[in-house]
Amino acid sequence: MRVRHKPWAKEKIEQHPQYIVSNPEEYKGKWHEVFNNDQPLHIEVGTGKGQFITEMARTNPTINYIGIELYDSVIITALERLIEADLPNLRLLNVNAVDLPKYFAKNDVDQVYLNFSDPWPKYRHRKRRLTYKDFLKLYEDIMCDGGEIHFKTDNQGLFEHSLISFSEYGLLLKYISLDLHKSDYEGNIMTEYEEKFSEKGSRIYRCEVKYQN
Amino acid sequence: MRVRHKPWAKEKIEQHPQYIVSNPEEYKGKWHEVFNNDQPLHIEVGTGKGQFITEMARTNPTINYIGIELYDSVIITALERLIEADLPNLRLLNVNAVDLPKYFAKNDVDQVYLNFSDPWPKYRHRKRRLTYKDFLKLYEDIMCDGGEIHFKTDNQGLFEHSLISFSEYGLLLKYISLDLHKSDYEGNIMTEYEEKFSEKGSRIYRCEVKYQN
Repeated sequence: MRVRHKPWAKEKIEQHPQYIVSNPEEYKGKWHEVFNNDQPLHIEVGTGKGQFITEMARTNPTINYIGIELYDSVIITALERLIEADLPNLRLLNVNAVDLPKYFAKNDVDQVYLNFSDPWPKYRHRKRRLTYKDFLKLYEDIMCDGGEIHFKTDNQGLFEHSLISFSEYGLLLKYISLDLHKSDYEGNIMTEYEEKFSEKGSRIYRCEVKYQN
Repeated sequence: MRVRHKPWAKEKIEQHPQYIVSNPEEYKGKWHEVFNNDQPLHIEVGTGKGQFITEMARTNPTINYIGIELYDSVIITALERLIEADLPNLRLLNVNAVDLPKYFAKNDVDQVYLNFSDPWPKYRHRKRRLTYKDFLKLYEDIMCDGGEIHFKTDNQGLFEHSLISFSEYGLLLKYISLDLHKSDYEGNIMTEYEEKFSEKGSRIYRCEVKYQN
């Protein structure tokens, strides 16, 4: 996604600690304190402008959600969306995915969503793909045994690389669609990007994989 | 594939035991006697009219090939092709894939090819798909440790089902292309069916999976 610099973003983020958690390291191992309940926790890594995670939280009030986004100028749109929706089961984190284990302990998370992640098509950039083995290890370190990754993308190369990465890591493929919008999968919630690109006729690829502990 | 009845096929098959092995059970565990060498053996299950396996044998003279086809009236075309090509490293078997362990012992086979297998789209027919777990067990029982299956199809549903079946069986995904003819994969040898359907613009899916013994 194109990222525009927004100098006022940082200040606005700091003004809304009830939505964008400003001290996430303090909740490591005790995220239930933030939500005041023991519901399962699903996180989206690379939440962008937040349409997916906000709709998920609205649709599934018995699940807690955290959207994680590195870029100030992007998460600001997710923040505005969340201020309007005011959902008790959704928070945002303005942090880097490589630091996930600073903020989450083993068993904190039940499910990880990856939606339209940056494809990093060049081989020399492969370690930056959010489905590279080092990231699969990070997710494992913060998820419950048998936790799942739900992944969708319109990028064929990223999907191919990711299926191989999942297999090499020993993850079990539970579900796959090679043309999501023409499949019988129900309840798909679209990201902003997905709406835009599927209108142009791009195929959406989707899979669910499971850690086999 | 549409199968026409050809009453003369059986007789013609019997007339060419040097190409269509008439007593395959006698070579179980000793296929090198048929080929008079110790080259690796690759088999194609569902060889159809034989274009793929004939071209593979011609291109790779240091590998032995066996094409397996159940239907008389289809294998007859593969036979005619082989009579013309007269390749020392290629034989055909007119048998049912479910009987493979009658004709091959553990370690007899190094690689299995599945090309454009019948998709059997209905759930109640899933056990007939050549990538169903029972078939994966059959191939394992006749292959070397670390043996590979190379699979291609234009059928999206079959490819999706097969990827899940491979994962559930514990096979390692080594290679995948979700649009083979637009990929950088080199040396693809096409089947008759593949030529016909790719001309119409159908995507070809391909993968390579490996037994992890």
